[in-house]
Amino acid sequence: MMNYQTYFTSALDHLQAERRYRVFADIERQAGRFPQAIWHSPEGPRPITVWCSNDYLGMGQNRDVTRAMVEAAWRLGTGAGGTRNISGNSHPVVELEAELADLHGKEAALVFTSGYVSNQTGISTLAKLIPGCLILSDALNHNSMIEGVRQSGCDKVIFRHNDLEHLEELLRAAGDRPKLIVFESVYSMDGDISPIHAICDLAERYSAMTYIDEVHAVGMYGPRGGGIAEREQAMHRIDVIEGTLGKAFGVMGGYLTGTKAVMDAIRSFAPGFIFTTALPPAVAAAATASIRHLKASSEERQKQQRQVARTKQVLSGLGLPIMDTVTHIVPVMVGNAEACKAASDRLLEKHGIYIQPINYPTVPRGTERLRITPGPFHTDAHVNALGAALVEVWTALRLPLEPKVQAAE
Amino acid sequence: MMNYQTYFTSALDHLQAERRYRVFADIERQAGRFPQAIWHSPEGPRPITVWCSNDYLGMGQNRDVTRAMVEAAWRLGTGAGGTRNISGNSHPVVELEAELADLHGKEAALVFTSGYVSNQTGISTLAKLIPGCLILSDALNHNSMIEGVRQSGCDKVIFRHNDLEHLEELLRAAGDRPKLIVFESVYSMDGDISPIHAICDLAERYSAMTYIDEVHAVGMYGPRGGGIAEREQAMHRIDVIEGTLGKAFGVMGGYLTGTKAVMDAIRSFAPGFIFTTALPPAVAAAATASIRHLKASSEERQKQQRQVARTKQVLSGLGLPIMDTVTHIVPVMVGNAEACKAASDRLLEKHGIYIQPINYPTVPRGTERLRITPGPFHTDAHVNALGAALVEVWTALRLPLEPKVQAAE
Repeated sequence: MMNYQTYFTSALDHLQAERRYRVFADIERQAGRFPQAIWHSPEGPRPITVWCSNDYLGMGQNRDVTRAMVEAAWRLGTGAGGTRNISGNSHPVVELEAELADLHGKEAALVFTSGYVSNQTGISTLAKLIPGCLILSDALNHNSMIEGVRQSGCDKVIFRHNDLEHLEELLRAAGDRPKLIVFESVYSMDGDISPIHAICDLAERYSAMTYIDEVHAVGMYGPRGGGIAEREQAMHRIDVIEGTLGKAFGVMGGYLTGTKAVMDAIRSFAPGFIFTTALPPAVAAAATASIRHLKASSEERQKQQRQVARTKQVLSGLGLPIMDTVTHIVPVMVGNAEACKAASDRLLEKHGIYIQPINYPTVPRGTERLRITPGPFHTDAHVNALGAALVEVWTALRLPLEPKVQAAE
Repeated sequence: MMNYQTYFTSALDHLQAERRYRVFADIERQAGRFPQAIWHSPEGPRPITVWCSNDYLGMGQNRDVTRAMVEAAWRLGTGAGGTRNISGNSHPVVELEAELADLHGKEAALVFTSGYVSNQTGISTLAKLIPGCLILSDALNHNSMIEGVRQSGCDKVIFRHNDLEHLEELLRAAGDRPKLIVFESVYSMDGDISPIHAICDLAERYSAMTYIDEVHAVGMYGPRGGGIAEREQAMHRIDVIEGTLGKAFGVMGGYLTGTKAVMDAIRSFAPGFIFTTALPPAVAAAATASIRHLKASSEERQKQQRQVARTKQVLSGLGLPIMDTVTHIVPVMVGNAEACKAASDRLLEKHGIYIQPINYPTVPRGTERLRITPGPFHTDAHVNALGAALVEVWTALRLPLEPKVQAAE
């Protein structure tokens, strides 16, 4: 008998050798006390402060959102009970899609089990329905978009990250064939944003469709939380806007918005949509409550922006190597996998501060980092404690602090 | 400017012309009153009876399951807040995986956002990790498995559905290379089951790994709801068992179970696992409660089996063309898309009975059907009403009733 186990153990050994083997921290967030959580450490439960959550606005503990989930679970049950076509099309999902179409000023929306699936099956189905389509894809697009492009089986070209000249060169070279530009608004690991209007200008000039991933922006940017495209008044210029219900909206699921025809075609042809159980009504109801809240309230966004600015200022003042970003994402560069893991471990074990190391393949090798996401519930005291802990860790691990730390002291 | 809309509208026109355009019924199930639901019809809300749910045991309305969801939502929040690696690894998910490993007698388990994703990213990752792997795949495998096989990029051969001779022929022809057999236990559209022990015999003889999809069996078969493989005492012979939390367990999500090394390798390399937000703690807690309940209680399974047998008996006695199955799935053959849709529409509009038409591509053309799933909460009166309604619809649409209907009357 062939020993199949060795294939898997040797693959894992390879990860260990490269210091890329991941250990998941077992945590319980404490609703009402975010960013506090309990870490189930090998020595037992310990209180920690979470600094790396993608529940960016803490909406996962919002009482209206929780109440919507709870009420729907008691009234309609805990699951959808089927695919959208076969008995799983609950009324809360229908309402959620109307809410999302309104959020982005589009005719229609379509909800998926995750943002990953919405990109993967959405992009591949969209491109397949356009005969001879060429996909132009930003070099730093998320894995889910890359998988969608790959599965479409269409020709593709990659443009250098946010490089308009390169994109134009490729559009011009493509000639008259149908073209689809896929890109993100906020790139989540570097925290930078794309030039949306300029990309739309090129799309119009060269007659291309546009698809934007706003998963790290929806809820957080724009007067109603419609994302960077809303803030820049560009939503109407983009054909398909993709977003998530699992980050700033604090629940779970992904979605697409666009014209009725495009949404209906994806609904009708996307295997990752057709053949999967629908979102539970309780999840859909919670997401709708969250979107409605953030359409009307800017308080969470303002508090988040304030604490992001403060975190950048404090860490930078301490000489920590933060990457300069224009968003809520604050990466602290480490530059190698082992040190990054060691810094994260020390922060958790010694300081009760939870920031997961970000290593390859999530970021390129040599750019390993700690990725900090300050939110509206991080207090000034939390920020100060974070700064002090990072300096202790940097010093203990002999990682470089920038000169201004001396100047500031 | 190129008119991209026409690509999508023409694709939709094609579906309409083939009578394959799907309309989703907008429904609200009524927890505590399953299988009753409210249909939001174009003329307003109407009470209906659901006969096509994949919440096979009605666990979605179980009070312990709902309570677990509600309690976790209040305590931990409505979402996971991140990927499993980055802050989304909640304690309820860790507990759920331990529960699933125990259910199937395996060392470890891994939870995904859906059964679709567990098959797609699970099969492709597994096969990719085995150099030179040949995948042997049953001809009637679900779309999610087909996509997993395709994405692996490995060589594949398709064996005729449940055909052991053909499978052996292909195994023999494959020679010494690594081999992975992927198949289901219950095939959900025909309601038949695979010869698990015989397939395992072949796998051992020809040194192949085995992967089984038990999504239409977990919770419902075996003394603890471990599926057909548990019932046939074959779980230990299968390398990877895949299941769902969204059907008989009444919640949402998918999973794999197997050895620690295999689970750890998939955990570490599967893009559809790594790059997606984790299941909400509330969903995981509800699923755990449901699995625990069905490990200890056979009442739901027995009642389901009773009502399945009764439904088959009543419909068959009325001369309705039901397919003979050995499972809880009762397909009634129609044989063309238009009549199938018309029968479903008439059942809903005239009789308040909801059974979605099953058309191509879910089943082959010419085998369009109504797929009925009796559960423990369908009463004898529900079954009788279903029989009478089907006869009325068959008569009105001039669909053939078998001779025995006359004999029975």
